[in-house]
Amino acid sequence: MKQFVVIGLGRFGSSVATTLAESGYDVLAIDCDAEKVQSISTQVTHAVEADATDEDALKTLGVRNFDVAVVSIGDNVSANILCTLILKELNLPYVIVKAPDSLHGKVLTKVGADRIVYPERDMGARIAHNLISSNVLDYIEFAPEYGVIEILATDKMFGRTLKELEFRANFDVNVMAIKRGENLHISPGADDKILEGDKLVLMGKNDNLEKMREFGS
Amino acid sequence: MKQFVVIGLGRFGSSVATTLAESGYDVLAIDCDAEKVQSISTQVTHAVEADATDEDALKTLGVRNFDVAVVSIGDNVSANILCTLILKELNLPYVIVKAPDSLHGKVLTKVGADRIVYPERDMGARIAHNLISSNVLDYIEFAPEYGVIEILATDKMFGRTLKELEFRANFDVNVMAIKRGENLHISPGADDKILEGDKLVLMGKNDNLEKMREFGS
Ligand SMILES: Nc1ncnc2c1ncn2[C@@H]1O[C@H](COP(=O)(O)OP(=O)(O)OP(=O)(O)O)[C@@H](O)[C@H]1O
Ligand SMILES: Nc1ncnc2c1ncn2[C@@H]1O[C@H](COP(=O)(O)OP(=O)(O)OP(=O)(O)O)[C@@H](O)[C@H]1O
Ligand SMILES: [Ca+2]
Ligand SMILES: [Ca+2]
Ligand SMILES: [Ca+2]
Ligand SMILES: [Ca+2]
Repeated sequence: MKQFVVIGLGRFGSSVATTLAESGYDVLAIDCDAEKVQSISTQVTHAVEADATDEDALKTLGVRNFDVAVVSIGDNVSANILCTLILKELNLPYVIVKAPDSLHGKVLTKVGADRIVYPERDMGARIAHNLISSNVLDYIEFAPEYGVIEILATDKMFGRTLKELEFRANFDVNVMAIKRGENLHISPGADDKILEGDKLVLMGKNDNLEKMREFGS
Repeated sequence: MKQFVVIGLGRFGSSVATTLAESGYDVLAIDCDAEKVQSISTQVTHAVEADATDEDALKTLGVRNFDVAVVSIGDNVSANILCTLILKELNLPYVIVKAPDSLHGKVLTKVGADRIVYPERDMGARIAHNLISSNVLDYIEFAPEYGVIEILATDKMFGRTLKELEFRANFDVNVMAIKRGENLHISPGADDKILEGDKLVLMGKNDNLEKMREFGS
């Protein structure tokens, strides 16, 4: 079973650490702030106060034996970079780092980071897409140019089957699921009828989803 | 066309503002920090330096005429709350607020926020799920208990068709797409064969996806 070390316990880091621990994984959580360490201590395997830019401290903690490190030292950008460098020199196989922006992301890649994440930027874009159309309830980009949107069925759709609506032929989007109240009907068939209140989960290219939105609204 | 006002231009707020503006929407961006205002000014319709807790300032800016407000005043929690309160008193129809934690989220709901978002917490949980299994490349929860995962095809799958693998019968999960290099093959058929290097996008209940992960790894 993989072992995880999470360094920097802001909102992102602590969410990663507690989610991994809740799923039953070994998690070592590190922060230089004693309060942060204290407040996560009952939720992870080990929580330790240490300076993540101190190579000896990290060695003493046995960090080199971990499989994955997650680094999120927030606005302390130089510490973020230095810590990543140390972890890759200790041969950590997989180091994932939260970056403030793509410029720092590039630097982090140069020093060896295996994956860079931009939680605020990505979630900001996702929320913006959700807001754009009144009937779009959610949007997720899951490949470059491709997304999944959830839309509220409009009156143009009520009482018609998927075959009649021909989303695929007309918009080149696929109906992945229909949400009806508490029920989720995955991979609906051509004869399934859309009712008022239904939500449709659609997958396709972003520009086709955009057309679908306009049709919907 | 809807008009948006975005208040607080940290990473999240500025990502929301620029994404909306890129999609062609009118965006008024507000921050009390002149530098933040300056750096976003060419990317949005209007960028203004103002204190978001100053009701008169917000009135003068005509904020009451907007359809949607996005508030993300970061660690300045009292300003976040006060600004939300003012916006709802100005009858803004939809106010979405970034909260640091669920405790503040509750307060924000009490003062009238229509939707609370937790970008760092939610993205932290998502990254943690992505990390748990070596062949899981991404995970998205899109309804309570239901998710989409992207997994790397394993050697047990190579050369076999979807019909032979029977993911639906065996695990009650659906293959939404196959990623092969740059290509995304949406809604693959029963006779499609999995090759080495393929990535599968699967939708289903979380516990069934979990079983699928174990089968995969
Ligand atoms: N040298 C260091 N060693 C260990 N931890 C550090 C070091 N420097 C900063 N930290 C810790 O990193 C964490 C960074 O979180 P912080 O909340 O400041 O960043 P953030 O960008 O706001 O993150 P989030 O948005 O996820 O909350 C803090 O808990 C801080 O104590
Ligand atoms: N009273 C106020 N009026 C207007 N803007 C404000 C006010 N108080 C704070 N702000 C602005 O809100 C923004 C909050 O962003 P900040 O980066 O501090 O928060 P954050 O939680 O780190 O957000 P993110 O993680 O998205 O970067 C800052 O640009 C700050 O200038
Ligand atoms: Ca923080
Ligand atoms: Ca911050
Ligand atoms: Ca943040
Ligand atoms: Ca910030």
